[in-house]
Amino acid sequence: MNLILFERSELSADGRVIVRGDRARHLLRVLQVEVADTVRVGVIDAATGVGTVTAIGSDSVTLACAFGEHPPRPRIDLLLALPRPKVMRRLWAQVAALGVGRIILTNAERVERNYFDTHVLAPECYRPLLIEGLQQARDTHIPLVTVHRQFRRLIEDELATLSDAAIRLVADPGVTTTIREAVAGRGDARVLLAVGPEGGWNAFELELLEAHAFQRVSMGPRTLRSDTACVALVAIVNHES
Amino acid sequence: MNLILFERSELSADGRVIVRGDRARHLLRVLQVEVADTVRVGVIDAATGVGTVTAIGSDSVTLACAFGEHPPRPRIDLLLALPRPKVMRRLWAQVAALGVGRIILTNAERVERNYFDTHVLAPECYRPLLIEGLQQARDTHIPLVTVHRQFRRLIEDELATLSDAAIRLVADPGVTTTIREAVAGRGDARVLLAVGPEGGWNAFELELLEAHAFQRVSMGPRTLRSDTACVALVAIVNHES
Repeated sequence: MNLILFERSELSADGRVIVRGDRARHLLRVLQVEVADTVRVGVIDAATGVGTVTAIGSDSVTLACAFGEHPPRPRIDLLLALPRPKVMRRLWAQVAALGVGRIILTNAERVERNYFDTHVLAPECYRPLLIEGLQQARDTHIPLVTVHRQFRRLIEDELATLSDAAIRLVADPGVTTTIREAVAGRGDARVLLAVGPEGGWNAFELELLEAHAFQRVSMGPRTLRSDTACVALVAIVNHES
Repeated sequence: MNLILFERSELSADGRVIVRGDRARHLLRVLQVEVADTVRVGVIDAATGVGTVTAIGSDSVTLACAFGEHPPRPRIDLLLALPRPKVMRRLWAQVAALGVGRIILTNAERVERNYFDTHVLAPECYRPLLIEGLQQARDTHIPLVTVHRQFRRLIEDELATLSDAAIRLVADPGVTTTIREAVAGRGDARVLLAVGPEGGWNAFELELLEAHAFQRVSMGPRTLRSDTACVALVAIVNHES
């Protein structure tokens, strides 16, 4: 926890916040703060700053906060064929830590239907995991999450309003164009990155993506599990920016 | 499981192997193979090829194998400050899937001593996870694993015999040199990549690494968990090769 993150509603008018639960335990047991110590703080979807400890309770810490800069908006939106629940669960914090603006989860032929019934897609489950990732990476931008059961409707009708990214890439083991080649000369344009299911997109899905401006890019000769592929691809796109 | 991997000792003189257990269940239930079907096969630390199903039992499949090319040796060796057992457990398959020649696990000031007592460091635990990663990525090179409780002795006395990598990099949030700049013009030289503990290397450790030819490279402004950092960095180094 490299940043104590909280909701704007938790902040009083004079810039104080009383943190409890996991965050308080982290401050008290791991960081072992005392009155007058300072820690990094942030407001979800807003600025980061410094919090000065003004009071300590048995399971609460009061911080007087002074805010500075607003972290830059993540450059990447992620369009991901829904992986199995166990893999998706592991991904939330990692993707938030790497930084993405949106996580657009979609159906595809090779996604099993029952993956959509999991509690891993409930905000009560994933929101704390996203916040865990943001606190790790010192970011405040919580990814916007949407879940889409109809791939075609998503790509044809909904995607344009979901992501404003000027560059659209789809990872495809069958091509040799690198991510570098695809983003070269495009400045810091935002990237919408599509990552398929374990068995890959089918031909119809790939063609529909291409018809909607997605450029196929290589992800190397190795077939990776969805979570490994996501982390690797987001890291490479960030590295290219 | 994109490759059925087995030990050389499982292969008969005439190129037949009888697979059982998980691999047989995968062939029978997921791939639903029948006699005369072919599947991708590989021998650990040797070639990949094609296996033709010649017989099917209740929990066994006999394959007649013909071997072709030997996958290239991974370009990267990984020097990793031992993460928490839960994180290390998740890393084995992912790192094997991304491809590394060696995994050199080390102590550091900010590694907790009890991390070394975990069963996650027992070959009985990690070898099946490494093989799972290789089967995912269709590789046969099982990473060599060593565990070192004395950081200084490792760096000063043992590292030269463990890794022949010509390029040594250490990820450090405090610098701006990119991985691209560090490997530019070095052809396909092998890379030894050092990834520190969650709290970072201490000043002594960083200096000792630098004194032993490790160049500091940036991993961007975000602090990542060890497993996310490893996957991201190995992917970026591979992408640069």
